[in-house]
Amino acid sequence: MEENTFKPTDFIIDVLDFPQKGVVFKDITPLLANPKAYSRTIDEMAKLIEKYKPTKILCAESRGFFFGPSIAIKLETGFIPVRKKGKLPRKTIDMEYSLEYGSNILCVHEGDIKKDDIVVFVDDVLATGGTAEAVCKIVKKTGAKLACCEFFYEIGFLGGRKKLSDIGVETVALVSE
Amino acid sequence: MEENTFKPTDFIIDVLDFPQKGVVFKDITPLLANPKAYSRTIDEMAKLIEKYKPTKILCAESRGFFFGPSIAIKLETGFIPVRKKGKLPRKTIDMEYSLEYGSNILCVHEGDIKKDDIVVFVDDVLATGGTAEAVCKIVKKTGAKLACCEFFYEIGFLGGRKKLSDIGVETVALVSE
Repeated sequence: MEENTFKPTDFIIDVLDFPQKGVVFKDITPLLANPKAYSRTIDEMAKLIEKYKPTKILCAESRGFFFGPSIAIKLETGFIPVRKKGKLPRKTIDMEYSLEYGSNILCVHEGDIKKDDIVVFVDDVLATGGTAEAVCKIVKKTGAKLACCEFFYEIGFLGGRKKLSDIGVETVALVSE
Repeated sequence: MEENTFKPTDFIIDVLDFPQKGVVFKDITPLLANPKAYSRTIDEMAKLIEKYKPTKILCAESRGFFFGPSIAIKLETGFIPVRKKGKLPRKTIDMEYSLEYGSNILCVHEGDIKKDDIVVFVDDVLATGGTAEAVCKIVKKTGAKLACCEFFYEIGFLGGRKKLSDIGVETVALVSE
């Protein structure tokens, strides 16, 4: 793949009416299936956050796990999974947040984030920013520094960036619709 | 980390009575939090399956995603996620399998695996082998070759290896209890 021919959005498929009628779902599995594009994306995402000198990469299940672990290995930082209630076996720090219908609880193992850690939260998409906001609150509880939130792509019109206005945001691709 | 001092099991914590009383859960999050051990594990897992010359790495959500994507990037193969029913947006090949209580359905996007693909299934743990067996059945449906199943660790006494006796099995660590 040549330097100037890589367009991340070439590897995202629009799927209409998923998960419900009227929604256009952005399917990133074609990116994962293309070794050159996937590897290039991980390289770009690692490069974008290198300047923050992160010591821990945090990722929420499940699609965040397609990006965070490989970035953590590349930057030689620890990787900390953020999981739904009941999935992590030891004592956790929990944060409830609202979804369109109902709510969800995200958890991190207590003690996994230290006060002197520099944390970057990585996820596949910045949409409304609800997940990222909840993770930011967990990091705040630990006393560590949240350096920025990074996403493979951002859906601009959903306004998630505003919700994270006091934290740095890095994205590889912007899709407006 | 020296060549001869790396013991994968040093990074697995036993958690008693999780997810239910009487069960000893193997917590691998300490491995993920240690950049040297995590990177070393990915290197070893990639090396173990290189001989099969895989063209696609398959992984089931969610803990499989801690290993498969990084291995796929290292070996320059495609990465194909295996997800629970309702998570993949396009048409899927589905496989139901039994759990201790009830059942589960695993899905792969139709067309993601081609007839001439050489597939390796990667997961965190080989326990009873139910997940791996279901994924093998999906791969069989596509006509592709399933070269082997690879796991970070294997719980020997649960007998999962017997269930996969006609397929190669590769593991980094064996825990017997």
